[in-house]
Amino acid sequence: MCGIVGYIGTRAASSILIEGLKTLEYRGYDSAGVATISEGKLQRTRAKGKLKNLQIKLEGLEDPAKLGIGHTRWATHGKPEEHNAHPHTDTKERLAVVQNGIIENYRELRAELKAKGHEFRSDTDTEVIPHLIAEYLEHPEGTVLAEQSTLLEAVRQAMVRLKGAFAIAVISIDFPDELIAVRQQAPLAIGFGQGEFFCASDTPAIMPYTQAVLTLDNGEIARLTPMGVEVYDFEGHRQRKKPQTLNWNPIMVEKQGFKHFMLKEIYEQPGVVRTCLEAYLNTEWDVDSDRSPIRLGLPDVLLDDLQHIQILACGTSWHAALVGKYLLEQVSGIPTFVQYASEFRYAPAPLMPNTLTIGVTQSGETADTLAALEMEQTRRMATGEDQYAARMLGITNRADSSLGRLVPHLVETKAGIEIGVAATKTFVAQLMAFYFLSLELAHRRQAISNERIAELIDGLRQLPAQLEQVLESQERYVEELSHDFSQTQDFIFLGRGINYPIALEGALKLKEISYIHAEGYPAGEMKHGPIALLDEKVPVVAIAIKGPVYEKVLSNAQEAKARDARLIGVVPMNDAEAEETFDALLPVPDVDELLSPILTVVPLQLLSYHIAERRGLDVDQPRNLAKSVTVE
Amino acid sequence: MCGIVGYIGTRAASSILIEGLKTLEYRGYDSAGVATISEGKLQRTRAKGKLKNLQIKLEGLEDPAKLGIGHTRWATHGKPEEHNAHPHTDTKERLAVVQNGIIENYRELRAELKAKGHEFRSDTDTEVIPHLIAEYLEHPEGTVLAEQSTLLEAVRQAMVRLKGAFAIAVISIDFPDELIAVRQQAPLAIGFGQGEFFCASDTPAIMPYTQAVLTLDNGEIARLTPMGVEVYDFEGHRQRKKPQTLNWNPIMVEKQGFKHFMLKEIYEQPGVVRTCLEAYLNTEWDVDSDRSPIRLGLPDVLLDDLQHIQILACGTSWHAALVGKYLLEQVSGIPTFVQYASEFRYAPAPLMPNTLTIGVTQSGETADTLAALEMEQTRRMATGEDQYAARMLGITNRADSSLGRLVPHLVETKAGIEIGVAATKTFVAQLMAFYFLSLELAHRRQAISNERIAELIDGLRQLPAQLEQVLESQERYVEELSHDFSQTQDFIFLGRGINYPIALEGALKLKEISYIHAEGYPAGEMKHGPIALLDEKVPVVAIAIKGPVYEKVLSNAQEAKARDARLIGVVPMNDAEAEETFDALLPVPDVDELLSPILTVVPLQLLSYHIAERRGLDVDQPRNLAKSVTVE
Repeated sequence: MCGIVGYIGTRAASSILIEGLKTLEYRGYDSAGVATISEGKLQRTRAKGKLKNLQIKLEGLEDPAKLGIGHTRWATHGKPEEHNAHPHTDTKERLAVVQNGIIENYRELRAELKAKGHEFRSDTDTEVIPHLIAEYLEHPEGTVLAEQSTLLEAVRQAMVRLKGAFAIAVISIDFPDELIAVRQQAPLAIGFGQGEFFCASDTPAIMPYTQAVLTLDNGEIARLTPMGVEVYDFEGHRQRKKPQTLNWNPIMVEKQGFKHFMLKEIYEQPGVVRTCLEAYLNTEWDVDSDRSPIRLGLPDVLLDDLQHIQILACGTSWHAALVGKYLLEQVSGIPTFVQYASEFRYAPAPLMPNTLTIGVTQSGETADTLAALEMEQTRRMATGEDQYAARMLGITNRADSSLGRLVPHLVETKAGIEIGVAATKTFVAQLMAFYFLSLELAHRRQAISNERIAELIDGLRQLPAQLEQVLESQERYVEELSHDFSQTQDFIFLGRGINYPIALEGALKLKEISYIHAEGYPAGEMKHGPIALLDEKVPVVAIAIKGPVYEKVLSNAQEAKARDARLIGVVPMNDAEAEETFDALLPVPDVDELLSPILTVVPLQLLSYHIAERRGLDVDQPRNLAKSVTVE
Repeated sequence: MCGIVGYIGTRAASSILIEGLKTLEYRGYDSAGVATISEGKLQRTRAKGKLKNLQIKLEGLEDPAKLGIGHTRWATHGKPEEHNAHPHTDTKERLAVVQNGIIENYRELRAELKAKGHEFRSDTDTEVIPHLIAEYLEHPEGTVLAEQSTLLEAVRQAMVRLKGAFAIAVISIDFPDELIAVRQQAPLAIGFGQGEFFCASDTPAIMPYTQAVLTLDNGEIARLTPMGVEVYDFEGHRQRKKPQTLNWNPIMVEKQGFKHFMLKEIYEQPGVVRTCLEAYLNTEWDVDSDRSPIRLGLPDVLLDDLQHIQILACGTSWHAALVGKYLLEQVSGIPTFVQYASEFRYAPAPLMPNTLTIGVTQSGETADTLAALEMEQTRRMATGEDQYAARMLGITNRADSSLGRLVPHLVETKAGIEIGVAATKTFVAQLMAFYFLSLELAHRRQAISNERIAELIDGLRQLPAQLEQVLESQERYVEELSHDFSQTQDFIFLGRGINYPIALEGALKLKEISYIHAEGYPAGEMKHGPIALLDEKVPVVAIAIKGPVYEKVLSNAQEAKARDARLIGVVPMNDAEAEETFDALLPVPDVDELLSPILTVVPLQLLSYHIAERRGLDVDQPRNLAKSVTVE
């Protein structure tokens, strides 16, 4: 959360910073700001709210500076007000800092610095950083090595004092040819242009200018000058590094006639599923073949003789992981456990032998998931025992991310870049990854017959057309239906079995973009408490697909109906029993229950979208959220 | 859900039925009704709403009948209206039926019976039963055995047609000396008085009259006459049974000066914890002793060489199970998995070896939990392999329940009878059971040192006094605080680690009795979606107790504060950092984080209670809920 960008070179910095921030706005947009340095002057402009407000302020300002830093904020400490917006400065306003992350010991540091006469002007944790650097510039500790600039050394001394996870960029009037950037548990990349250098939280901010990129590692400080880039560790030792050429060519992102990116991305789902099928199905496989029906390119040592699987994730990826658990248990026959990454990292389960650990993160940058995976890898390696070996797999939409560097094996979800903050097509692509993985494992272990595998693959192949059918048949109806709910304050989503996580995901979508308090429940749990909420003002959305729990979900829906709740059903097409039970129907084509989540989630995405749109909300950039959660 | 009572004997039936229904009102109270038979007349009285409404209707009616059935309803199919209230009759109104449970194939049966000329007058699933019995009375199938009454045989033939889980009681004008009762997957007990016989969903309805009770098994039909009780199976074979004398003497239940049972039960918690400590701590143990510090009386074959534990539960018991997981993993070192019983029974995880299965249910009658345990026992026994042996343990407040009969080993929670529908003291007693179990296992496996065990036991011993301190210091403040929230529509509860389940439980309490949409989250997950809900209208309650995640929870709370949410903190006493962060403080005494849930849940119980009370709601009998959930 929070996006950082920095520039040093030959062109006007401010417009490059603004263009960069635009590509980073998905990381937060509570407020934004830039600071530049030229002719001994530090010029800082900040604005509350979206980037547009900052742009308006900057219009007409002639700023020749070739050095600057910019920031778009997702508030952690202190409200989204202009005085809390980055960049922050020291008391004398001679240096400016932007930061992504959280400084955990900021209270102590602030008290210490105040005692030394520093004046604070914001409620943020960030502001301790410029003051601390200024303090070390004036009073450096120990012997400062001659070949290092004093700004670099002051930053280094300050970094050693900070606790937490952060990335920062620093400029100073007194060092007009330097930009210092630091990475510690929060992503930061450096771009190498022709006589110009960039730093940014994420590569899209850099890509228009260069494909030569160096991703800093944790505990590294980079000094950017018009001459080049030097990298040091926190002890001040120079590091040998070199930039890489990115091979991921970002597609040109446009709305292509859709009103919002989210709607466009919902409509891209048939294509995403098709791409995944093309990438991962072995077209030469048939039921009599010994080879795998799936081509994930994962080694035997990762997948053979597994006794357990554990999946670590957050948010929507956690919902995909719950569907994955169902598949890995019921299709592949392997006990599977899903953990919130944020919980697992502080209270991991006791080590189980022969365990595959899977991390799921769309961006590949989710701080909790990365930290949990790293912790797990470390503690497994520490045992030195084969049975506890760290078998690590990542599922991500960004192979070039921190996750890609952390774990040795990936399944790429191939959804293409997603702009809407509420995940849609990347969720469906994550589900596809779990279908492939569970079929691969089922085949290896002969957990189900080749005939059943063939049946499921046939079913998968039908999904793109079925998705198109759902989109085609429902969009107008869902749009009309959404009129009834523009004033609704609460929603309950119910599902059972493999569609229980879809109920959670449907509720999360509505919460994220409509700010309606929606909650998902396994349908059988409703009567253990949540049913007390129900009356005619609380609609209930139930997912009831033919299979062993179909009648059970209908019974649970009846219990809700008996409390006057309006019932919306995601149900099989042309089903008399469903028609009798529900007040509104969102039918999906005939599908194997195991594959149904790919279809049942779509009406729920559309419902969220149209309700939010009806309420006049900013669908693509909902309040308080960020696309990629790079703080704890 | 739904309470059944029946009487045949020498006294006026209707007043015995009403007294019985009063003790069953915790099972549902949407509507109620009774039917009696005397002098060739079936007299039926029903009323929407609470039992009081039925009592008013019955006042002044002189009813000499010595045979009758009664019912208090928790609606599953059909709204809570008088025409849906039980008893239901056949078309000619010659027989009457009360039922608890769900008939899954009622649609088909109704269609079939309508085609044969039966007239339906309600929206319930139940009504097919009297019509079906009437049909078989008129047109019995096959040869009817001479020694069986035709009512018994007609009921038997009808039962064979029903799918689902149910208990019923039947009377008929044409058989004025018989009461037929059936149990199939829903509890039913029979009481043996002096020349009088009773049937009821739960023993408290019978206890004022006799302690000689027979609990029917699934698939049994009982015929009660003034002469005695005969029991048959669904094939019509007579069963040998005999009543047992109950040794659980129900305490006289009164509010003892408290305005509601719930508040009384919150205040009983220090005593409940004391009772548990007395029952289960080995007072002769010290750090140098080899014997166990805990006296659970569980055999080695249940607890030794465990590799995994799985816990099955619903609702509040599921929250206790999550705390249990934390303890069993972090204290005893055993990987532990918690499943919703309603999900597990239809999609159980693949079998893991050397696994202890624990079922947690306050009433011992929760249908989903019983069914999940039974399924697990059956599939483990089917393997015939030692490593997959069914090691089953129940945690319940009712040793005389169906759970007590299903599993060979129990930990009794010793909370005494709980009347408030929202569980409070039984939750705390369930947590105590998990403390004892995890310490017993930790000691057996030497997972932690004896010194650490002694430290935790010392901490447990301090809890009763600390609970009293929390109650004493907070009640008035919480009552005042609740004034601010009488109009609030949404609440978020945050916790991490061992207090994450307490956040869930705090939210559930508020939902259950205040009908406020409250939701609990692991604090780290908030920024993955739910944070979009936050603004100045949504208060956030965070549990932040000193320990490894303390600073993390404070950071998450700051993120909420930055969105203007009002922050309420359950925090350590006299903590400056907490005082700076939160708008309102609910401090608890200094406690080991591992033991803190026993204390942190109490302010949340009080908060729910006072908000509900402030909103003028019926705290002890919230809408839509039932104390013991005996349907799926």
